Amino acid sequence: MLAGTTQIRGNTVSAPKKVVLAYSGGLDTSIILKWLQTEYGCEVVTFTADLGQGEELEPARKKAELLGVSEIFIEDLREEFVRDFVFPMFRANALYEGLYLLGTSIARPLISKRLVEIAAETGADAVAHGATGKGNDQVRFELSAYALNPDIKVIAPWRLWDLSSRTKLIDFAEKHQIPIAKDKRGEAPFSVDANLLHTSSEGKVLEDPAGEAPDYVYQRTVHPEDAPNEPEFIEIGFEMGDAVSINGETMSPASILTKLNELGGKHGIGRLDLVEGRFVGMKSRGIYETPGGTILLEAHRGIEQITLDRGQAHLKDELMPRYAELIYNGFWFSPEREMLQAAIDHTQKHVTGTVKLKLYKGLARTIARWSDHSLYSEAHVTFEEDAGAYDQKDAQGFIQLNALRLKLLAARERRLKK
Amino acid sequence: MLAGTTQIRGNTVSAPKKVVLAYSGGLDTSIILKWLQTEYGCEVVTFTADLGQGEELEPARKKAELLGVSEIFIEDLREEFVRDFVFPMFRANALYEGLYLLGTSIARPLISKRLVEIAAETGADAVAHGATGKGNDQVRFELSAYALNPDIKVIAPWRLWDLSSRTKLIDFAEKHQIPIAKDKRGEAPFSVDANLLHTSSEGKVLEDPAGEAPDYVYQRTVHPEDAPNEPEFIEIGFEMGDAVSINGETMSPASILTKLNELGGKHGIGRLDLVEGRFVGMKSRGIYETPGGTILLEAHRGIEQITLDRGQAHLKDELMPRYAELIYNGFWFSPEREMLQAAIDHTQKHVTGTVKLKLYKGLARTIARWSDHSLYSEAHVTFEEDAGAYDQKDAQGFIQLNALRLKLLAARERRLKK
Amino acid sequence: MLAGTTQIRGNTVSAPKKVVLAYSGGLDTSIILKWLQTEYGCEVVTFTADLGQGEELEPARKKAELLGVSEIFIEDLREEFVRDFVFPMFRANALYEGLYLLGTSIARPLISKRLVEIAAETGADAVAHGATGKGNDQVRFELSAYALNPDIKVIAPWRLWDLSSRTKLIDFAEKHQIPIAKDKRGEAPFSVDANLLHTSSEGKVLEDPAGEAPDYVYQRTVHPEDAPNEPEFIEIGFEMGDAVSINGETMSPASILTKLNELGGKHGIGRLDLVEGRFVGMKSRGIYETPGGTILLEAHRGIEQITLDRGQAHLKDELMPRYAELIYNGFWFSPEREMLQAAIDHTQKHVTGTVKLKLYKGLARTIARWSDHSLYSEAHVTFEEDAGAYDQKDAQGFIQLNALRLKLLAARERRLKK
Amino acid sequence: MLAGTTQIRGNTVSAPKKVVLAYSGGLDTSIILKWLQTEYGCEVVTFTADLGQGEELEPARKKAELLGVSEIFIEDLREEFVRDFVFPMFRANALYEGLYLLGTSIARPLISKRLVEIAAETGADAVAHGATGKGNDQVRFELSAYALNPDIKVIAPWRLWDLSSRTKLIDFAEKHQIPIAKDKRGEAPFSVDANLLHTSSEGKVLEDPAGEAPDYVYQRTVHPEDAPNEPEFIEIGFEMGDAVSINGETMSPASILTKLNELGGKHGIGRLDLVEGRFVGMKSRGIYETPGGTILLEAHRGIEQITLDRGQAHLKDELMPRYAELIYNGFWFSPEREMLQAAIDHTQKHVTGTVKLKLYKGLARTIARWSDHSLYSEAHVTFEEDAGAYDQKDAQGFIQLNALRLKLLAARERRLKK
Repeated sequence: MLAGTTQIRGNTVSAPKKVVLAYSGGLDTSIILKWLQTEYGCEVVTFTADLGQGEELEPARKKAELLGVSEIFIEDLREEFVRDFVFPMFRANALYEGLYLLGTSIARPLISKRLVEIAAETGADAVAHGATGKGNDQVRFELSAYALNPDIKVIAPWRLWDLSSRTKLIDFAEKHQIPIAKDKRGEAPFSVDANLLHTSSEGKVLEDPAGEAPDYVYQRTVHPEDAPNEPEFIEIGFEMGDAVSINGETMSPASILTKLNELGGKHGIGRLDLVEGRFVGMKSRGIYETPGGTILLEAHRGIEQITLDRGQAHLKDELMPRYAELIYNGFWFSPEREMLQAAIDHTQKHVTGTVKLKLYKGLARTIARWSDHSLYSEAHVTFEEDAGAYDQKDAQGFIQLNALRLKLLAARERRLKK
Repeated sequence: MLAGTTQIRGNTVSAPKKVVLAYSGGLDTSIILKWLQTEYGCEVVTFTADLGQGEELEPARKKAELLGVSEIFIEDLREEFVRDFVFPMFRANALYEGLYLLGTSIARPLISKRLVEIAAETGADAVAHGATGKGNDQVRFELSAYALNPDIKVIAPWRLWDLSSRTKLIDFAEKHQIPIAKDKRGEAPFSVDANLLHTSSEGKVLEDPAGEAPDYVYQRTVHPEDAPNEPEFIEIGFEMGDAVSINGETMSPASILTKLNELGGKHGIGRLDLVEGRFVGMKSRGIYETPGGTILLEAHRGIEQITLDRGQAHLKDELMPRYAELIYNGFWFSPEREMLQAAIDHTQKHVTGTVKLKLYKGLARTIARWSDHSLYSEAHVTFEEDAGAYDQKDAQGFIQLNALRLKLLAARERRLKK
Repeated sequence: MLAGTTQIRGNTVSAPKKVVLAYSGGLDTSIILKWLQTEYGCEVVTFTADLGQGEELEPARKKAELLGVSEIFIEDLREEFVRDFVFPMFRANALYEGLYLLGTSIARPLISKRLVEIAAETGADAVAHGATGKGNDQVRFELSAYALNPDIKVIAPWRLWDLSSRTKLIDFAEKHQIPIAKDKRGEAPFSVDANLLHTSSEGKVLEDPAGEAPDYVYQRTVHPEDAPNEPEFIEIGFEMGDAVSINGETMSPASILTKLNELGGKHGIGRLDLVEGRFVGMKSRGIYETPGGTILLEAHRGIEQITLDRGQAHLKDELMPRYAELIYNGFWFSPEREMLQAAIDHTQKHVTGTVKLKLYKGLARTIARWSDHSLYSEAHVTFEEDAGAYDQKDAQGFIQLNALRLKLLAARERRLKK
Repeated sequence: MLAGTTQIRGNTVSAPKKVVLAYSGGLDTSIILKWLQTEYGCEVVTFTADLGQGEELEPARKKAELLGVSEIFIEDLREEFVRDFVFPMFRANALYEGLYLLGTSIARPLISKRLVEIAAETGADAVAHGATGKGNDQVRFELSAYALNPDIKVIAPWRLWDLSSRTKLIDFAEKHQIPIAKDKRGEAPFSVDANLLHTSSEGKVLEDPAGEAPDYVYQRTVHPEDAPNEPEFIEIGFEMGDAVSINGETMSPASILTKLNELGGKHGIGRLDLVEGRFVGMKSRGIYETPGGTILLEAHRGIEQITLDRGQAHLKDELMPRYAELIYNGFWFSPEREMLQAAIDHTQKHVTGTVKLKLYKGLARTIARWSDHSLYSEAHVTFEEDAGAYDQKDAQGFIQLNALRLKLLAARERRLKK
């Protein structure tokens, strides 16, 4: 190959000169790091983010240094993650295919955003990620990157190299003196992604959707059978659609989600065994654990019940699947997601108040809710005398006019049958 | 008042000559029966349906006879209810306001259908129901009736009479020698509706949404704390979107729902504490128990996961809230509900297969599913070598073209900032 | 009747003490004025607005004075009408039932807004309008009024009085010395509503949708046959979705619409003969003339073509029918209309540029458009060499991954047929 | 290259053995024919369809024979095209981006269907088309082919070869003795696609959306200025949503569209200058002439106005943009298009009757419509006495209950402001 060029799908294109790599410190991204250095002869900048995945980040620094990296970015993004990505999404009650809380999908845009920003800071012309060519994550990383910088190059080594088996990867690592943890020599029994919102597991032992997921797959939640035999009651406070307190204690976004994760995990809440339709066209099976998020969704619906008008609530529900699909497919930084967000955020102005939930053996259930912003009117709904708040005779006219077109339809049927 | 006329909203209109009354045999509808007879001097036909509410119907016959009714219709509609109403609705995964399984809403159209049919059979010119002027049920009864017979009269005594307090009702009953069960003299602490799909409780002690529902409200499900300490595993078989078997045993629609109710009730599954937006404009709070339906929804989503294409699945999810709203608002017999049903039913052609669920302490969870109609392709999704089923390089082009408009947008932003 | 009370649907309620009447100065609203005074013995405040209906307002003042009114409000609302109601609606490309530009619907909320505001200023407890009980306008007036002041009383004399024929109305007028213009004694051949956006005609000679509308119905546009034989070319400038200039001359919102009306009227543009579904349940036939609005819609679509991203544009088109329905049904001041407006307005940030149109014999057609905010990229779309802007090989992967699920579906069909 | 293999995106794959080519007989597809023969050494079957493009097909047979093709398919698909593709689409009133009648999009699936069927008949393993790598047509051809046969190979020479300039193409043709019509040596000033529904023109002189399309671009419609000075009136009869007669004469689908094209073309109807968002990501500008289709859409809306219930009509309008997008993007043979079609077709059961239109100088306008299936009720809508068909007092209750939630919202605003 010519110096300074590379082959992409049979085309000779200019090779990247400096690449910002989303680097976990693990074996796979270490191999990618080295591969980028050797393949392109380019400089590599590493970016390692704490999104609440529960791993220490300092080892990543050491490994990057060991691999000759001089520009190393390690950042705690947990607050930004929850405040600017997770919470806006929960305002929409977003569920992909009716069940999935989008834990992986929502983290990718933030990582891409920082990759692109760091590329600008460090003068890099490319970013790189460790997602494979079969999944959704490559799409999410790259659409986000291109939406933020149309000229950035994105390198996806898994689609480019020929390290197509575990053996080849290990050979490459050994050849380049990349340290290999003992437990990484063999194949992992399944693949894991984690952040403050969820842990997902997929692949290998989970690939047969007719086979039950083994118990050891679950990492973040106890088995409901092992959860406490006593229910726990909590109160979550909301302001304008976002959770702001637990049991009366005001907390930051990331602190709230952390606390809800702890509560949900303890009570076995938020497990999901799902077969979903990927954007790239095939179905895949995932095991998701979203303890805090599952509680949060239930609570958010609970507070909306009394504070959100029916007109907005129903329209929001109709728009939600599209909104969730956009996030799942990687279009967080798209004008249509932002357009929907504008509509959703508009509805949350009065979504302020408190929800009481019962947590028990895998289930989080709203049992009470109150708010100064409540639209619930006991005066109107009461079975007792309502002092004129509601005139039952109005229902007659309401029904008659709603029925009119149905009557005209029925009259037509009758007329045509004759 | 002139003989043969009545006052409706200040207008003198011709009084009904013969009325078919939806009659439960209870005190309230017995009072209505007598009131119709005395107010209009008209003949009353009673219609009592077994929709799985769990009450014996023969006492209703005796009471009707006692009140001088000569045409008494008592019918077991459970199979028709589940087959033609509940199951079509579950094909849509219908949830009102994200949570409510529409147990009351879906029963009303069937009752109206039979009322109108019996009116035709018996030469009646009117039908009557016992729903109040504040609720949704009056709307559901009447829209259904008018959609099926545009010339039918619908009498809603609660909107017409002046029996506006418990005392007046009891007085009226005593004056007309209507038998009053001892426990009916006082006010019930809340109001109940039940059928094979659910039991709903609302009003009185439940009117404050900030107050927890007392334990005694729940009638159909054990408290999760009292449910078995061992999970139970079941398999539900589906054909074209409808459940057809449990644990390999083929059963009729009503038998399946009955069995699922038993299972769900035993494990404390299907409780919901909801504040919802009524069609008539106010919010109300209900406690719903839908044990079998909750399991059925989970299972239906489970089988759709492997048998339904993403394109249809997502569109179905987008249409669902509207479909649920139509049912909630009483528009079952509307052309737009039928139009949506045509679309939904079209998607269910291949929704055939088996789902395995775990039932435990209030939660029903899909843990496995299989089908000859499965679209899941392990060959495509596998982390292992896929023998050319999927070319990872295709993802590059897929992403590039999906990104193109985002790049053009980003380029515009950049251009305009200069 | 007791002093200070009135009968509404058979109920005795307290009569209004002071009413703000939407007063045109014509015979019908003069009769209403007098009827309010005599029926309730209440004070009447008149409100007459210039919404561009093309009538002088000062005669309304004289007539109101003559009828003993002391608080008379006469206001030119044309700029507010176009800026805050018409233009926001056109940002959505709103068409009711695919064709109707909502000329009447969009004017009602503004009138109600001022009625309610004047009621607050003058200490009135009620507002009144001259819409009949069969149409949509009553709904629009009243929903708007209640949304702005939940305690306001709304008086709709046409639903209350017994002046149910022309003869009775004329008798009432004569009895109360209300001046009657000569041409108002007989029945008008059809009913007209007009404002700066449109003129609508309906009723009487137009009631048979199988009969062609007589030529004399059209008041605001020449017959296309009588329009100039030479086309006229104009350029409309837009900023953030709103028209701001014609042929390079910057103008106020109302001035722009006035000028477009003049141009459209001259060229016979904007006639519509429609049968539409009313909110109150029946279908009605209207003849609408919307000369300026028809040009404006065409131009707005023209500028969106190059400045709006496909993702937003398509979503906007999907939301539009609901948005239009909300306005048609009278829900301008509803949270769901505002929610949709937030989404729509979000899309208009870059809808800035110029459209050239050809006006000729009833047709306004976009023939060119340009903008600094254009997303159109000749570099990408060109049939010529594109210097690498677009790699045609990317299409291969794009198609393969879009096809994957279709292939899996086809493979299932084939498998099951065996 | 190895015999029997070819390179696709850098991969060596097995070469096609026998290819069915969509063959027009023109220079470009003749070059493709020869290129397939020489590149793959494979047998080529030609398929030439009459979709109403207005060209003779027999010359295509001669040219194919000259190029050594032994299996030549020439078919008149006009009736199938209109009956099974155009008419179903018009039932939906489909417009892409509010304006485009999808004339090209709707023809591609039918061509692919026949290509795949002929491949099965002739034992071919591949199909080929002449669409470029920048447009939508490649996507439409290929998605359709894969949806009908998941194992078919699709060859898109424009994405594969290096004949990237006019000169190279001509050289190739000369080298292989492909006859070149005189007027094909130079570059065409723009590119044309035509079928019975429309003619589209794009590229080259049309690439600047700020430049007006030259007059000579229009091929199928006269300039409105040159259209007759007298309007023409026609009546179109519909049955279940499809046009079945013109001026009382029953005609086949293709005959109807042919006749409407003649009428529309004569009166200058159906011209559109559009910048649209392509599925592959960029915007492009097209000049479309759809004379008959433009009349048909207007007429179909006209007959729906009196025969379609508001509930279905509004839902149909909401679904339409998605339906149009699916067709535009090439997803005709997708389960979600079929799902929507099921819903749309359900609505057309009563769309039967007659519409009268006026054709004049570029405009087709509905001026009357009648039907035995009409839902229009003069008895209800009349300004005259309605003999009790409609009780205006019902509107009071209708408005009150529709207003209730708005009042509760307003009361909240007021309460919180204090």
